[in-house]
Amino acid sequence: MITDRLLNLDDFERAARTALDDARWAYLAGGAGRDDGVRHNEAALRRWKLRPRPLNGVADPDTGADVLGFPSTLPVLLAPTSPLRLFHPEAELPVSRAANRAGVLPIVSNDSHHSLTDIAEQGPFWFQLYCYGSRDDVTRTIRLAESLDARALVVTVDNSHPSRRLAMLRAGFATPPEVRFGIHRESGFSDGWVPPDTRLPRWPLTWEQLDFIQERTGLPVVVKGVLHPADAAELVARGVSAVIVSNHGGRQLDDTVAAIDTLPAIVAAAAGRIPVLMDGGIRSGADVIKALALGATAVCIGRPYVWGLAADGEDGVFRVIDVLRQELLDVARQLGVSSLRDVPTDLVVRTATEITVDEEWRCSA
Amino acid sequence: MITDRLLNLDDFERAARTALDDARWAYLAGGAGRDDGVRHNEAALRRWKLRPRPLNGVADPDTGADVLGFPSTLPVLLAPTSPLRLFHPEAELPVSRAANRAGVLPIVSNDSHHSLTDIAEQGPFWFQLYCYGSRDDVTRTIRLAESLDARALVVTVDNSHPSRRLAMLRAGFATPPEVRFGIHRESGFSDGWVPPDTRLPRWPLTWEQLDFIQERTGLPVVVKGVLHPADAAELVARGVSAVIVSNHGGRQLDDTVAAIDTLPAIVAAAAGRIPVLMDGGIRSGADVIKALALGATAVCIGRPYVWGLAADGEDGVFRVIDVLRQELLDVARQLGVSSLRDVPTDLVVRTATEITVDEEWRCSA
Amino acid sequence: MITDRLLNLDDFERAARTALDDARWAYLAGGAGRDDGVRHNEAALRRWKLRPRPLNGVADPDTGADVLGFPSTLPVLLAPTSPLRLFHPEAELPVSRAANRAGVLPIVSNDSHHSLTDIAEQGPFWFQLYCYGSRDDVTRTIRLAESLDARALVVTVDNSHPSRRLAMLRAGFATPPEVRFGIHRESGFSDGWVPPDTRLPRWPLTWEQLDFIQERTGLPVVVKGVLHPADAAELVARGVSAVIVSNHGGRQLDDTVAAIDTLPAIVAAAAGRIPVLMDGGIRSGADVIKALALGATAVCIGRPYVWGLAADGEDGVFRVIDVLRQELLDVARQLGVSSLRDVPTDLVVRTATEITVDEEWRCSA
Amino acid sequence: MITDRLLNLDDFERAARTALDDARWAYLAGGAGRDDGVRHNEAALRRWKLRPRPLNGVADPDTGADVLGFPSTLPVLLAPTSPLRLFHPEAELPVSRAANRAGVLPIVSNDSHHSLTDIAEQGPFWFQLYCYGSRDDVTRTIRLAESLDARALVVTVDNSHPSRRLAMLRAGFATPPEVRFGIHRESGFSDGWVPPDTRLPRWPLTWEQLDFIQERTGLPVVVKGVLHPADAAELVARGVSAVIVSNHGGRQLDDTVAAIDTLPAIVAAAAGRIPVLMDGGIRSGADVIKALALGATAVCIGRPYVWGLAADGEDGVFRVIDVLRQELLDVARQLGVSSLRDVPTDLVVRTATEITVDEEWRCSA
Repeated sequence: MITDRLLNLDDFERAARTALDDARWAYLAGGAGRDDGVRHNEAALRRWKLRPRPLNGVADPDTGADVLGFPSTLPVLLAPTSPLRLFHPEAELPVSRAANRAGVLPIVSNDSHHSLTDIAEQGPFWFQLYCYGSRDDVTRTIRLAESLDARALVVTVDNSHPSRRLAMLRAGFATPPEVRFGIHRESGFSDGWVPPDTRLPRWPLTWEQLDFIQERTGLPVVVKGVLHPADAAELVARGVSAVIVSNHGGRQLDDTVAAIDTLPAIVAAAAGRIPVLMDGGIRSGADVIKALALGATAVCIGRPYVWGLAADGEDGVFRVIDVLRQELLDVARQLGVSSLRDVPTDLVVRTATEITVDEEWRCSA
Repeated sequence: MITDRLLNLDDFERAARTALDDARWAYLAGGAGRDDGVRHNEAALRRWKLRPRPLNGVADPDTGADVLGFPSTLPVLLAPTSPLRLFHPEAELPVSRAANRAGVLPIVSNDSHHSLTDIAEQGPFWFQLYCYGSRDDVTRTIRLAESLDARALVVTVDNSHPSRRLAMLRAGFATPPEVRFGIHRESGFSDGWVPPDTRLPRWPLTWEQLDFIQERTGLPVVVKGVLHPADAAELVARGVSAVIVSNHGGRQLDDTVAAIDTLPAIVAAAAGRIPVLMDGGIRSGADVIKALALGATAVCIGRPYVWGLAADGEDGVFRVIDVLRQELLDVARQLGVSSLRDVPTDLVVRTATEITVDEEWRCSA
Repeated sequence: MITDRLLNLDDFERAARTALDDARWAYLAGGAGRDDGVRHNEAALRRWKLRPRPLNGVADPDTGADVLGFPSTLPVLLAPTSPLRLFHPEAELPVSRAANRAGVLPIVSNDSHHSLTDIAEQGPFWFQLYCYGSRDDVTRTIRLAESLDARALVVTVDNSHPSRRLAMLRAGFATPPEVRFGIHRESGFSDGWVPPDTRLPRWPLTWEQLDFIQERTGLPVVVKGVLHPADAAELVARGVSAVIVSNHGGRQLDDTVAAIDTLPAIVAAAAGRIPVLMDGGIRSGADVIKALALGATAVCIGRPYVWGLAADGEDGVFRVIDVLRQELLDVARQLGVSSLRDVPTDLVVRTATEITVDEEWRCSA
Repeated sequence: MITDRLLNLDDFERAARTALDDARWAYLAGGAGRDDGVRHNEAALRRWKLRPRPLNGVADPDTGADVLGFPSTLPVLLAPTSPLRLFHPEAELPVSRAANRAGVLPIVSNDSHHSLTDIAEQGPFWFQLYCYGSRDDVTRTIRLAESLDARALVVTVDNSHPSRRLAMLRAGFATPPEVRFGIHRESGFSDGWVPPDTRLPRWPLTWEQLDFIQERTGLPVVVKGVLHPADAAELVARGVSAVIVSNHGGRQLDDTVAAIDTLPAIVAAAAGRIPVLMDGGIRSGADVIKALALGATAVCIGRPYVWGLAADGEDGVFRVIDVLRQELLDVARQLGVSSLRDVPTDLVVRTATEITVDEEWRCSA
């Protein structure tokens, strides 16, 4: 495979840049506004540093995670993204296949190209619900997910409104005509075809709408897009099953706090009553472990697996997950962490020193 | 309109750079000394980050503001600037027209090119008073503003003395001969013509001079250029109607504290007894909301609307305000803020991490 | 000598870069992952600043150090590195000769090219033990070191597992065929020849393995690779003779805390009961003294002496040590420190200001 | 004058760079080691920010200072530097003339090219004493200074030992043959000629040597080169007349704390019993006022006046002082400071934000 030569996620990013035209790249890489939010997620993670305890003597760390009852081989999920048809002719199918092969859960977007039936055949999944159309439309979509054995409903609360994605606009991005919305068709909400630049009627995800969803389903409800501890506390009180700390990869609002920096406050607000997941800026196994040490149960990756998809389809996605697995094994061994289910908080500290890259020639050959 | 393709205020800045010769650009963009103050205002704002509460479910936020009784459509005013004849043949007129169209207040400089009568015809305004000539001259100018229904007198206290604007000097800036001072003529202070490099006799704005102004007018008196909390406390005690936290856009002193960083101390000193406004470095709707969250009632923009004026006249100014409006609507929705009259302080936090721009190719297409 | 023109360790680094091909350079300069850890060690040291007391009047400071009883002329040791055959045909021999000439201790790696007998002839040394093969193999290696009068056994605990050294992989580094492992042959563990990319069977260095080593030897046991204060406390309790704070020069894990920044916590945990040494990022005499002021008894240097070896063999190594000696004498005089055995903590403070390099022309001729 | 076009001290720096060959420039601009110390002094000053109180209404601030009884027109002295013959054929004479014309004190180096008699004729001065030769030699030099009405003896304590000035060495700097040491000849210590690279026998400046000097003279003794508060406290106890906080412009030790950052601790240690002066990194009137606000009575400038000397002789030195005077008047007016003898501490605050220079085109024409 071409991706065998790609050693870390930065390599996959470069490979995807090469594989994609400017407009698709801008759609994938860009965020809201000046893209400060995108970079800030990563920069904030690099400020957190690790303090290993190697004498613990961990040769074969357990990287498994219990993700709301699903025995994931890694504390990693694939964040919902769309339209994946931009990056691969088969869109979600190779993503779900790779996730299944790797033993992790994909979160399937309500805006997928394929029908949920086709996607569900690839392996277990969480379903990310948007509230299109009438309450009956939403209820039908929930029933569809339930019938196909979705393990949880993910409710994204941070993009109820369109955002100002300037990089995308500047690159002249437009949804290409081959993109379809298979779940829309399957749930009976529409014929699955959306003319470019159409904004579909979607209910903003409010407390009331969340109540409605919780009443309609027996599935665990996971709320994605939480940054404020007061919201986390309220969500715990309302009985959601988990929250995902996220600023939507910097795609909704340019000036939010970094996900990793607000994670500790959310974990404190959740007070151990529900699991806290996190996404935003995860680019290595060390990043995953930093999040776990700060209290996350698992993380989601978004752009990284799409890099893999764009570079090499299913194998690319699998390789991205596999690189993270190798890095997690490596970091866990070096840290002396026997199980990623229990990463002590005292293994991370925050540094005051920015890393500045000195002369180019120094560390590169 | 040409400015339809300009998506944020950075774009307007670039457009203005293209439209202006070096000397005018230096006049507009430069500040005092090394221009540290100019950059510092912006850099400090980028350190403040937002924590949204999207589940509040705000689809249609109220962006209106009560600006000393004026029902502004935005918590934004246009800061007094001059000479605008440098940037447009009609100088203040398109600015005031655009402000009126947009439903915000311009603060009309005492050094305007046109008569106040002509400017006042474009819509409601605040008048920014300098104390030229005798006390009778000043009183006549106040009477003129009152007779034309100025909603407030703005007294700028931070440029009683000329500053060392090196960028301007290096670029060889000289006031071009077509610049006139219409309000000077109208108030009877002079014939409205000032030879280049002439420094007009102006009273420094001291506590005594402020008392004099307050005694002479029934208009609300707003003091612009406050950075020290002790001054804010004294101004409250002396009964001014509002203060504007400002370092004059970095144009007076290169080494001042950033406006946004001293705002909280000024708000604390005002203790809720008068409104606190702020200017300096505002370049986006997110910046406006950060200032509101830290206690400001409204902000002023200076350079940004002049970029619009230079790029496309009245339409350019209108578009700059409109971009801010769209950004404010966007940010308020994302944050879950239903009214800009009440932005909770806990929506902002300060980050320790500078955003560093990694390789160029990453986020740009 | 060519190295007479090299004035500080940066100069030796540049000279080594010139002397080495890309793959060898990548092996030497690179670390794990993105090389953040390599740079972070140095950047963190530059944040610590000195406060001299020159009136103490120290003309002739004593740079000597008691290194577990060895009267070292400097508080500096040469860290174990391998394979040195990459950088010089005689590998360890010129290193040990230079160390002996300079009056400092080399820490001889278990993976040396030459036999320990040959190396030991060059002068006193510490022996760094890896646990290859059976417990009998390890015991024989310990006996060999004891019989050749090793002054201490250094047990490296932070590389029990291979690390992800991407710079090296990208440069296509492979161990060249001339590399041999003389101590492996001498101890009877193997024939001393390791095919490229072979991972030899090595016991991870756990608490139990450490107990085994301590039981087998009367030599002082020094544990290298400690970053967590809890590990330091436990090592004191288990009776080791010293610890070396180290992140293996950033070669094992990209995201660890900088050695200098965790040193104070380790010193506190050791509570004066055993000496604490440190390595990682030491590039000048000032760096050495910062470590001493923060509680270290001595430091190790790694890459710097290999730069000297690559640039000029034994003389290069000697010159690197000699540059440090001159710098240490200089800094001690400037600080008013009469003996490096007692550097007061109040001579160092941490600064909030990054040093930014302004225009190139300013300080360079 | 050529220097009329030079608007701030940065301009003089550039002019001097143009006027000097590489070796002289390296001597002037460079410091010890990597030149971190040189840059750090300036970077630290830029972190301190001002909070003006313009309503105080200061039109004509008093810039005068009482410098141990000397009525200086500015709180500025010219730091002792040598050999000035490198930068001007007349060496110290134009410096002392310019200082006298400007109403400030030069501190005349013991290593001056001219005789102290010739220099003293140019105007009042402080004399900076090095302890060459025997105690009788030193006593004769003190008597010489007293007889020529030196107003104080400055004792530099931070360069008792040569430092590692790498920039200078790399540029191949050697003292040119025309350099003489007029005061050495005049005091009878030597014939005034020093072969290149000769290190003259000089007593290190210790507590004992300081006692000796204090016993030998009735002149006020000022100690230059203090960075540690414990030294400041001891100097107060020993009855010195003033201290100068200084790291010798970064020329002695690359890693010292910035002068401005240690100033508050020294002022606290002096406890108001003696004046505290400061040098290091002063490049503007704002920098001077920051030092005064943090407790300094006056500052010294070094490199800046030598830039003036190299660029335009006496007029250049005068203009450098005059630029500072104009800047001080400007800053004092903007701050509302009526006298530089009393700059309130609450006018300065330290910022967490580094100023980053955005795109080049933005603020420059």
